[in-house]
Amino acid sequence: MKLRLALAQVNPTVGDLAGNAAVVVKCAHQAQLAGAHIAIFPEMVLTGYPVEDLALRPSFQVASKSALESLARQINPQIVSIVGYLDHLAGRPQNMVAVIAGGEVKARYAKCHLPNYGVFDEYRNFVAGDSTLVVRIHGVDVGIAICEDLWIDGGITTQLAARKPGLVIVPNGSPFERAKDDVRLELVTRRAAQMNAPLAYLNMTGGQDDLVFDGDSIVVDKAGALIARAPQFEDGVMLVDVEVSTTTSKPDVIISESPVEIAQPLIPGIAQRLGDEEQMWKAIVAGLRDYVTKNGFTSVLLGLSGGIDSAVVAALAVDALGPEHVHAVAMPSKYSSEHSIADAQAMASATGLGFRVIEIQKMVDAFTGQVELSGLAEENVQARVRGTTLMGLSNQNGHLVLATGNKSELACGYSTLYGDAVGGYAPIKDIYKTDVWALARWRNRVAIEAGEVAPIPENSITKEPSAELRPDQKDSDSLPEYELLDRVLKAYVDEDLGHDALIAAGFDKELVIRVIGMVDRAEYKRRQYPPGTKVSQRAFGKDRRLPMTSKWREL
Amino acid sequence: MKLRLALAQVNPTVGDLAGNAAVVVKCAHQAQLAGAHIAIFPEMVLTGYPVEDLALRPSFQVASKSALESLARQINPQIVSIVGYLDHLAGRPQNMVAVIAGGEVKARYAKCHLPNYGVFDEYRNFVAGDSTLVVRIHGVDVGIAICEDLWIDGGITTQLAARKPGLVIVPNGSPFERAKDDVRLELVTRRAAQMNAPLAYLNMTGGQDDLVFDGDSIVVDKAGALIARAPQFEDGVMLVDVEVSTTTSKPDVIISESPVEIAQPLIPGIAQRLGDEEQMWKAIVAGLRDYVTKNGFTSVLLGLSGGIDSAVVAALAVDALGPEHVHAVAMPSKYSSEHSIADAQAMASATGLGFRVIEIQKMVDAFTGQVELSGLAEENVQARVRGTTLMGLSNQNGHLVLATGNKSELACGYSTLYGDAVGGYAPIKDIYKTDVWALARWRNRVAIEAGEVAPIPENSITKEPSAELRPDQKDSDSLPEYELLDRVLKAYVDEDLGHDALIAAGFDKELVIRVIGMVDRAEYKRRQYPPGTKVSQRAFGKDRRLPMTSKWREL
Repeated sequence: MKLRLALAQVNPTVGDLAGNAAVVVKCAHQAQLAGAHIAIFPEMVLTGYPVEDLALRPSFQVASKSALESLARQINPQIVSIVGYLDHLAGRPQNMVAVIAGGEVKARYAKCHLPNYGVFDEYRNFVAGDSTLVVRIHGVDVGIAICEDLWIDGGITTQLAARKPGLVIVPNGSPFERAKDDVRLELVTRRAAQMNAPLAYLNMTGGQDDLVFDGDSIVVDKAGALIARAPQFEDGVMLVDVEVSTTTSKPDVIISESPVEIAQPLIPGIAQRLGDEEQMWKAIVAGLRDYVTKNGFTSVLLGLSGGIDSAVVAALAVDALGPEHVHAVAMPSKYSSEHSIADAQAMASATGLGFRVIEIQKMVDAFTGQVELSGLAEENVQARVRGTTLMGLSNQNGHLVLATGNKSELACGYSTLYGDAVGGYAPIKDIYKTDVWALARWRNRVAIEAGEVAPIPENSITKEPSAELRPDQKDSDSLPEYELLDRVLKAYVDEDLGHDALIAAGFDKELVIRVIGMVDRAEYKRRQYPPGTKVSQRAFGKDRRLPMTSKWREL
Repeated sequence: MKLRLALAQVNPTVGDLAGNAAVVVKCAHQAQLAGAHIAIFPEMVLTGYPVEDLALRPSFQVASKSALESLARQINPQIVSIVGYLDHLAGRPQNMVAVIAGGEVKARYAKCHLPNYGVFDEYRNFVAGDSTLVVRIHGVDVGIAICEDLWIDGGITTQLAARKPGLVIVPNGSPFERAKDDVRLELVTRRAAQMNAPLAYLNMTGGQDDLVFDGDSIVVDKAGALIARAPQFEDGVMLVDVEVSTTTSKPDVIISESPVEIAQPLIPGIAQRLGDEEQMWKAIVAGLRDYVTKNGFTSVLLGLSGGIDSAVVAALAVDALGPEHVHAVAMPSKYSSEHSIADAQAMASATGLGFRVIEIQKMVDAFTGQVELSGLAEENVQARVRGTTLMGLSNQNGHLVLATGNKSELACGYSTLYGDAVGGYAPIKDIYKTDVWALARWRNRVAIEAGEVAPIPENSITKEPSAELRPDQKDSDSLPEYELLDRVLKAYVDEDLGHDALIAAGFDKELVIRVIGMVDRAEYKRRQYPPGTKVSQRAFGKDRRLPMTSKWREL
């Protein structure tokens, strides 16, 4: 027998119980009209995800539970809906899924394996469940697991397998990481084969704070063969007819015994995976768009220097919000090259974003006339005058300021605190400089292939990087060549290789000492951040929390 | 029989393996000279605590383990030392204690209960142990537990009790909270009685990042009666003779069977508890001093406005570092009152801190001449010019900038991002305004009672609070009276009471709506912080991690 599943790959907003419920109601209704028997929604779709410490707030727990009861009454009673929400067990929060049918909640399942590494803090925010759930739907015994449950070998899915489900449904809140789509498919394939049941893996989309969810929902048959796959970074409902086993076991709850027949079978689609640059670009665009809109802003503001970083951030913002919502300011000082303004102006003309020029020399002179500053302290004043100018315009006009720093320079501390680091969102803070260039070239190529104007001036891509804070300054005065630097940074920051391991990996000893020294000194520099700020690379799946006052040194 | 215990209430630094080992060697040697049989050190004394994600770095795991082996060889072989460190089990980090005697590690115990709430993230950073440890020392079966192990009812201490230890030793890294000393004593008393064994509870001192440890080490007899208690916030070794039971059970390891005799018994001391204000003051001073020194700074810089907040921060800094290491700048604008400079000057004269005046009007005029700014945007420019001035002096002279905001104004968003919020450390960010006044009065009273000059000008305490960013501005234009505001904030922020619960607690409905609105809007304002910053009240024991883009509203 086949069941028709509707996988609602949607983008909830944390805390927006009414808005998220409305999305569920609408999708379930559409799914029922399309003949689906089961509508599947992402992990904690009702509250949004991740809710972090909101989970601990009693009034929020009560509100989520009551929103679920109300949702059960509103939702189409003819379809079975699998809806994630926040419940509580004697006041202790649980990450749960409700099985809704006929206007009421028929069963509940609590996530058993709580991830508490990298970007996840679930052990902090939830109490783990400890038992499987199997519900009979149209005579099929359907097992449910939530996200991390699927990743743990010998965990709850082993217990679920022993109950011989005819179908397994897995709602997820699985953040985007580069090349994670391959890992996901391999996992889903393996688990389906282990449980000898078809598996529907449904993931959310959109940005939430510093995480991005890419969708990439997957359905496999009981041998693990891929049947259907949803596109990355797109909202929608994917309908799939799945051959299920009706050999019955002992379900916890019986919702319906009656078999079903599908009159008009659907041809399943397998969306193509995106290339590496396109994945990155779309992830950043989704994260930026949702950060702006979910925070109630309608426009952004950034400093446009003519260099590659601010040009790429401007192009991303235009793709995310449209040029009419992107405002850029060139803020030349006496050290700015002529091509800087020209390249910024070219970018504005190519994309149609709002553009103006504000000369900063008078402000800088007012500071240096009043306070004796030299060397680095004088260089930093220029960056801070720019930061104050952007924040003034932000306060005056309500734009969200975007910071334009990339991961290479932030990791090395090549940035001015309260200067170019100013901003509410930093779209490329997790992107190494070499990837920034790759993204720029990719985006221009896509435009040209579509017969559009390339958004990023060629000169911004090819010119030698410079902060232009003193005469003839180049990034290469202070940093190794980016090609080499980024390889060392990936190994030291992302992979946690130490001094000895880096040298064993073939890096030159002096280079290793230089880069480790810069990264560790940058940790110190971050002391000057507002208290509480830590090093973070969350959007691309890693969160590195280091004590500020640590005396630990690799060297 | 009695054993002499040496409780080393010391202040390790995270990552400083060599420095921490030297402290252990020195204290163990002193303890042995003083006739002690067992020297007890705090949780993870060798690595410092908390190490956060450093625990996950392979090179740090290896370094800790190798530092322990080397320490075992250096430490006085005649005394048994209980030393906390970081170990790993097949690469997975463990929070452990080693029992060292005769130049080698005789036994190891891994913490079984890992706290993962409030300021703790131990489930993220460690793998839990699962078994008790009992070692026989001079014929006495000594059980060991680590910090959280003691707090869990029905946990590992229940298993330990079943093994009938003759003495229980508990190394801790227990952060300071207001009035926590009473809770600790009650717990220690209860557990000793449950285990029917005397209990030695040893806690560390000092500041580490945004936590403060207050010492307050405690020894009770097997009935739970208090024998000895160390003073809060003071480093030192407390020697205590404890009557132990030699009824033997089945130890895991036998270190020595030979009984001991104490020739000259010690008279134990029970240090008096400090009053509420003194506890707070000393906690802030300890946190500030260690943040500055452990980060390698020698001096601090702050803006001194003549108001209460900056006056109290200056007095704290003088107590922490000495007046010669504290530099203050008055930065008057055209809206500053005459008394502002006079009061700042009076503070400088009373304490001897470094003081200068920098007029900011020219810098402000340069901005408003170049960019059209009005209202709040214009007010904020003044604060940001001050921030940029402080950072310029910091870059030029190497001082750490202190931010002077209090918890009441930060919670309500009554603060300028990149303006008065600038600084590497914010000593009173966890102190409500009414407590800031109480601290000022207390500190002056202590000075006067000691025949010293009161550090804080009376006028700074009694004047009406004002930001002085526009003519005749008062805090009360924007905020409820602080007495009332702070009560609502404590209930809403610290106790997580929602709208309904606040009204049920007797607060006026309109006031509740106003304060909740301000706090929730302030969450939005924090969007503009450098990415990664969250609301935090860590130093006083609470850490509130809220999603930035949440749409959840109490109202």
